[in-house]
Amino acid sequence: MSDLLEHLQQLQKSDEYPLHMPGHKRNFGTDFIGNPYEIDITEIEGYDNLYEAEGILRAAMKRAAKVYNTEETFFLVNGSTVGILSAITGVTKSGDCILAARNCHKSVFHAMELRSLKGVYLHPEILEDWDMPGAVSPSEVQQKLKEYPDIKAVVITSPTYEGIVSPIKEIAEIAHNAGIPLIVDEAHGAHFPFDERFPQSAIQEGADIVIHSMHKTLPSFTQTALIHLKRGYADIDRIKEYIGYYQTSSPSYLFMAGMDFCIDLIEKMGSHIWDDFFRMRGQFLKCTEKLSHIRIYQGNDPCKLVISVKGTNMTGRELQIRLLNQYHIQVEMAAESYVLGIITMCDTKEGFERLADALSEIDKNLSESLETVKIPVICKPGQEDMVYSLSEMRDMEKEEIPLISSKGRVSADYVNLYPPGIPILLPGECISNEHIMLIEGYLRKKLHVQGLFDEKILVLKE
Amino acid sequence: MSDLLEHLQQLQKSDEYPLHMPGHKRNFGTDFIGNPYEIDITEIEGYDNLYEAEGILRAAMKRAAKVYNTEETFFLVNGSTVGILSAITGVTKSGDCILAARNCHKSVFHAMELRSLKGVYLHPEILEDWDMPGAVSPSEVQQKLKEYPDIKAVVITSPTYEGIVSPIKEIAEIAHNAGIPLIVDEAHGAHFPFDERFPQSAIQEGADIVIHSMHKTLPSFTQTALIHLKRGYADIDRIKEYIGYYQTSSPSYLFMAGMDFCIDLIEKMGSHIWDDFFRMRGQFLKCTEKLSHIRIYQGNDPCKLVISVKGTNMTGRELQIRLLNQYHIQVEMAAESYVLGIITMCDTKEGFERLADALSEIDKNLSESLETVKIPVICKPGQEDMVYSLSEMRDMEKEEIPLISSKGRVSADYVNLYPPGIPILLPGECISNEHIMLIEGYLRKKLHVQGLFDEKILVLKE
Repeated sequence: MSDLLEHLQQLQKSDEYPLHMPGHKRNFGTDFIGNPYEIDITEIEGYDNLYEAEGILRAAMKRAAKVYNTEETFFLVNGSTVGILSAITGVTKSGDCILAARNCHKSVFHAMELRSLKGVYLHPEILEDWDMPGAVSPSEVQQKLKEYPDIKAVVITSPTYEGIVSPIKEIAEIAHNAGIPLIVDEAHGAHFPFDERFPQSAIQEGADIVIHSMHKTLPSFTQTALIHLKRGYADIDRIKEYIGYYQTSSPSYLFMAGMDFCIDLIEKMGSHIWDDFFRMRGQFLKCTEKLSHIRIYQGNDPCKLVISVKGTNMTGRELQIRLLNQYHIQVEMAAESYVLGIITMCDTKEGFERLADALSEIDKNLSESLETVKIPVICKPGQEDMVYSLSEMRDMEKEEIPLISSKGRVSADYVNLYPPGIPILLPGECISNEHIMLIEGYLRKKLHVQGLFDEKILVLKE
Repeated sequence: MSDLLEHLQQLQKSDEYPLHMPGHKRNFGTDFIGNPYEIDITEIEGYDNLYEAEGILRAAMKRAAKVYNTEETFFLVNGSTVGILSAITGVTKSGDCILAARNCHKSVFHAMELRSLKGVYLHPEILEDWDMPGAVSPSEVQQKLKEYPDIKAVVITSPTYEGIVSPIKEIAEIAHNAGIPLIVDEAHGAHFPFDERFPQSAIQEGADIVIHSMHKTLPSFTQTALIHLKRGYADIDRIKEYIGYYQTSSPSYLFMAGMDFCIDLIEKMGSHIWDDFFRMRGQFLKCTEKLSHIRIYQGNDPCKLVISVKGTNMTGRELQIRLLNQYHIQVEMAAESYVLGIITMCDTKEGFERLADALSEIDKNLSESLETVKIPVICKPGQEDMVYSLSEMRDMEKEEIPLISSKGRVSADYVNLYPPGIPILLPGECISNEHIMLIEGYLRKKLHVQGLFDEKILVLKE
């Protein structure tokens, strides 16, 4: 028996409760899929070809487009990553400039590097009470488009990891008034179109390209995603061409059958499929309302549970470990002052109850924090001082120097606090005193700063 | 029930025999995997992270490296495609020149476009008796490296789709003498290292980067692949970085567990695992030896069956359809004068026998071809006349014109006869009279020419 397989099967046999993706919660599919190898085929006669679809795969993607109420939908078997790479590559030419939210997924920055793009950035608001990045502001989009009239596309992430939705309708209108497309990384919102208790999907709000990770909140295999495409402001044929560049030429029929099954299930069951979920969630929120220290963030997306210990003597990381070790509840992610859980239609009453009981016990032993020094979660040092583009930086000579003496030098790596993983510095940006002080603060608090090694930072060789 | 899933399950219930990938032949795994959703997790605490592997995934990749006897092995969940993109991006800088075999997978050309590379091409020999592309010649590599001293890497495909292996050892030596790495797309040879009855793997022959599709000939899920990396001539850290660019940030644990299981199985069973396969294959070859018209190509790779009807009154496509409709045998691919079957350790005695019986019956009704006009399968119009690079072409204005009047114009699309799919023209190459005559000949024979629509060709706008 393979060690890896054995580990995964032991996890399944254990009582560990998954408060994380994938959305099927390992609690789905027993009856219908059977042995996965038996449906794992390739592009044989009569079974279509994803990249020139005219048979069963075309029908499946048409069904997805109908259920999602979009012009055209394409199956992605390499995650939302390939959707973002293809969308950005497809709507730009080499050397173009795009407007991107600073809290975008790393694949946005990778696309900018691969496509030799210049970047102008949007800074989402910070929810100080929760230490979380929030929504993108339409007025900032408006202002940046005015300031940089050569911008060719707008890219934002909505909802955020924590479930905060930006005002897509307004942002789409602003982009369209400038004659350019809006790309929305709605990876965490694949369930939005399916019930009116969820926020409106960016598809309905007028975005031109919307990318959904199916596995995050729906019962679909990890790594499955959708890209929804609308003609008008974006050249969607070009985007589809690039999907064929970035994605395997042997796409998995197992994945695609799983996606089709999930979409079919939702279509047939309709809104009822979420009723139990909302009932259990409501019960949970009621139970946790009366906690003294722990707070649950009531954001836009009901599938996200932000469990905050801000202001207490416990960190998010400590809460994560406590939930795992003592209550066998595995959360999705721990930030400085909260943990994030993902809840879906595949969660169980037992799971919600175990979580509520655990939080109630933990809450009893919490006290207020003695700490008074506050470090901002996200750096927003005015407009970035971009000296070189990501692609220009790619092949230049670099060296490592102590952070403390890096003022005025050009960063040659992505530096960020993880989570949330929003870049404090991108390759090509000039390092300021403010950057150094912020990062030093994180290091003193022993937070996880990515892109730094032994307090040294990679910079451009002078 | 989803239509797509139903189609796949009906196929499994049917008596259709798979003479194609994936290598598990839908005949594997019943007992050990169970419900695939149950082991489909994400990067949670204690379960490692593919891109910063230090736990169970690191151990699994180390095991793979040991079994494959290579310095370092990395799991790919986006097929060999992502391995090729990352390898080429990782060993070059923007504007560099690489030497690539003209019969490479399309992802090689895509990488050249995305990375803004110039290309010099190798033309594999043509096996006239079989209408197949053959090996790459070391002397041509030598000559091209001398002629273009700025070449930064050599990329070849070995074995070919049909199972022909190039002399990797010599080619690696030539590349290394020029101080540059050799990348071998050994997608079809993932089984090579496991038995001495198979050809030597490029890993052992000195290639720096070797890419294996696990699913093609081994019992592993479609879309799973490996990249093997050796330090020295290639910057393997850079290649790994680009894998993280091109590949999903949510890699499938189901896929990775399947890969580990397959490698573990082969390691534990050793060479015995292939004994039945070789016995059945030997039996089959003996049966088909005495056929009057049909010939079986005895190439380098025992996992490939090239079944030729060249010189008869039947085409490859007709043989494919006949095998499918009358004998319910689905082959991998049909070329003009042959069909290609893939056979693996998961084939059955019944399958081999059904194929032998079918070919024997078909053979009896064949006669010699009356056709005398011969059209070469692959165009080799001397050195290509490359006017613009693939990336330069990307954003230029194009127009469609009749093929017949395209002499002297610059092609703006990939034009090839499929199969074999080797580009006759690449975007950026000048169209000659020879090109036009060759393509016209294909069209007259009603062969499938990709990149042409109604005898019109896309060219650069003048």
